[in-house]
Amino acid sequence: MKKVGVAILGLGVVGGGVYSILTEKSEFFKKTQNLDITVESVMEKNVDRALSLGVKRENIASSIEDVISNPNVDIVVEVIGGIEPSRTFVLKSLMSGKTVVTSNKELFAKFWPELEEMAKKMNAGLFFEASCVGGVPIIRTLQDGMQANVIESIKGIINGTTNYILTKMTEEGWSYEDALKEAQRLGYAEFNPTADVEGFDATYKLSILSSLAFNTKVSFENIYREGITGIDKDDIAYGKAMGYTLKLLGIGKNTPNGIDVRVHPTFIRNDNPLASVNDSFNAVHLVGDSVGEIMLYGRGAGALPTGSAIVSDIVFASKHDDYYYTPFKNSTGGNKETKFVSDYKVKYYMRLSVADAAGVLSKITGVFAKLSISLKEVKQISAEEGKAEIIIITHPCYESAAKKTLEKLAALDEVYEIKGSIRIEE
Amino acid sequence: MKKVGVAILGLGVVGGGVYSILTEKSEFFKKTQNLDITVESVMEKNVDRALSLGVKRENIASSIEDVISNPNVDIVVEVIGGIEPSRTFVLKSLMSGKTVVTSNKELFAKFWPELEEMAKKMNAGLFFEASCVGGVPIIRTLQDGMQANVIESIKGIINGTTNYILTKMTEEGWSYEDALKEAQRLGYAEFNPTADVEGFDATYKLSILSSLAFNTKVSFENIYREGITGIDKDDIAYGKAMGYTLKLLGIGKNTPNGIDVRVHPTFIRNDNPLASVNDSFNAVHLVGDSVGEIMLYGRGAGALPTGSAIVSDIVFASKHDDYYYTPFKNSTGGNKETKFVSDYKVKYYMRLSVADAAGVLSKITGVFAKLSISLKEVKQISAEEGKAEIIIITHPCYESAAKKTLEKLAALDEVYEIKGSIRIEE
Repeated sequence: MKKVGVAILGLGVVGGGVYSILTEKSEFFKKTQNLDITVESVMEKNVDRALSLGVKRENIASSIEDVISNPNVDIVVEVIGGIEPSRTFVLKSLMSGKTVVTSNKELFAKFWPELEEMAKKMNAGLFFEASCVGGVPIIRTLQDGMQANVIESIKGIINGTTNYILTKMTEEGWSYEDALKEAQRLGYAEFNPTADVEGFDATYKLSILSSLAFNTKVSFENIYREGITGIDKDDIAYGKAMGYTLKLLGIGKNTPNGIDVRVHPTFIRNDNPLASVNDSFNAVHLVGDSVGEIMLYGRGAGALPTGSAIVSDIVFASKHDDYYYTPFKNSTGGNKETKFVSDYKVKYYMRLSVADAAGVLSKITGVFAKLSISLKEVKQISAEEGKAEIIIITHPCYESAAKKTLEKLAALDEVYEIKGSIRIEE
Repeated sequence: MKKVGVAILGLGVVGGGVYSILTEKSEFFKKTQNLDITVESVMEKNVDRALSLGVKRENIASSIEDVISNPNVDIVVEVIGGIEPSRTFVLKSLMSGKTVVTSNKELFAKFWPELEEMAKKMNAGLFFEASCVGGVPIIRTLQDGMQANVIESIKGIINGTTNYILTKMTEEGWSYEDALKEAQRLGYAEFNPTADVEGFDATYKLSILSSLAFNTKVSFENIYREGITGIDKDDIAYGKAMGYTLKLLGIGKNTPNGIDVRVHPTFIRNDNPLASVNDSFNAVHLVGDSVGEIMLYGRGAGALPTGSAIVSDIVFASKHDDYYYTPFKNSTGGNKETKFVSDYKVKYYMRLSVADAAGVLSKITGVFAKLSISLKEVKQISAEEGKAEIIIITHPCYESAAKKTLEKLAALDEVYEIKGSIRIEE
């Protein structure tokens, strides 16, 4: 039976989950995987926490040098998060020839080529299933289940916090602020929720997933990003009545004009399989030219789901020593020839507060016409004291034209306010 | 660049799909996988078909010996289907040290241990992603994405033909016969539809999936099987109104009393993620003790989706030579100590035509009470000329008790007919 020694850097929520899975299921891994996996070293400042989890004092490392000089350690699990000291620790581990397993999406989104280069140089493994969509094996699927496919699109609900908030706004009619507060109370959102609600977290994940899907480095800086803080619950309700559900989607499309990647609130049809992915669940929908549509669904976060992904990588790394390296591994971040779409085509939902008078609608639709945007639907939803609210659904149009239209509409005397503008994907 | 030679046994629908993916994407595999994959040999009786697909005459093998003696062939793809000659061809290929990739669920369900034993003896690879749920990487997920988990349950819509039929019965109100005819016209159902509609196909797949999920050999003979031929569209409609959707489910549960495996028409709640899997789509829902719920969704059949799974196996086999063998590989079929549940607990939906008279309901509910089955709901749905129809929903009860109840009900003078009895999973 093969012996595998693991070091865990950071015993926070995920690190604790990994530690408990590895120690409690030691016999299970012997029986089902023919692997004798032991935790040989743990790095955690909070020594009391480590001891309370059952770590032996002699296994608590005081420095990264302690860890990488330990000959019993084959695999280093980095679950500290953030850039430093994680980046240094991962690089030092790889430099010493250890295989690294990490859940660190920010590190991967920002320093993947550098890490890959080092791993390749040292013939060490570098695994990151846990960096995207928690326990759902989406990285394994992209690497080992979809090789026959040119992937046409990837669309995902890849942030559980915002999906919880949007679900509550949709199902309970809560305001954004109330839903955020409840998410914070439940531990789904952090005290400073920016990384989640402004879409940074989803952008990091989409950068990783679309790089794998499209076989080229997609930097998080290539991705258009828009969060959910400006979403009004009324737009969710109006959209719902018109057959649309609002989700924060990560969208990647491989188009003839280049790669189109963005994270933004999106209306999808109520019968889209992603529309019924609720609460803190995540899902990724892929279209491949051979396989057609597939979707993976599950928990995107949490100690055990993320721990499950990390342990899956540990077992995979232990069974194979012919590691994969992505074809875009160079220190500057990739394939310079990759083209990105800057002006994509999309449908829009817009809600306007306008003067309730004759000729107003004609003036408004005239703005769309001038920018060659054709309209699918225009409807008035309310009127009071000379004011009316109208909803406009466009046919697909260029993003730049939609933006210009919104500017011109806002400048009209007859338009009091642009109350909402949300992109639609069908 | 590694050279990989492939032989394809059978150029039917799936074989043709594999051939076209491998030949049309030859450059793509060089670029993305660093593999130079070529089709070196094809075995197909219909020489004209082979030639019309572009196979060179000198690459058409006239016997399995031709194929296995070809030193350029590394991987043999078996897509003939059925037991013979597939079994002999697969064994001969393995005996000659070639890796085998197959989509043959019946062969795997019936002869897996024998095939594994031979593969292990010859250190050859044996891959079967395409045997279950077409292009959806469910085998890879079970083998390489869920290793950290004791899997508690697997529930799947794993037959596209029956899912198409049930979808049409549900959404259009068609009878079983009409839906079957349309499925045959579209090529979703065969002229002799028995393997699909009687649940044999799903039983083979569930045998493979639950063996992997529960780390023990689950023979198709261990699986309770019931098809959809007896389903009345009225029961689908009544169920729908009560919040249930009818699906043919493959169900595997790892319970303290043993493994509970069955294929039967099943009511699931309308908000269950499997309930919105429609038409010929398939989906598998898993619960693991670490990861919680996950679901995979996609096309279960077809030339390109199944071809995608086969090519995925070819690429995986080409990149790794440390093959997996399942822990139950012995020629008699496995772990004798595995316990199976014979009398599982389940809820029931029953529809009865009864005499419309005082005291009848009390007599009927008395039958349930005597067998210790408690009822969740009893409601009358129609009455005419002294006859009434009632629907009964039970709380969870033993299958044996439900069966006995149905027998006793049928024997009552006041019960004219048992119009429907369908199990409910929640």
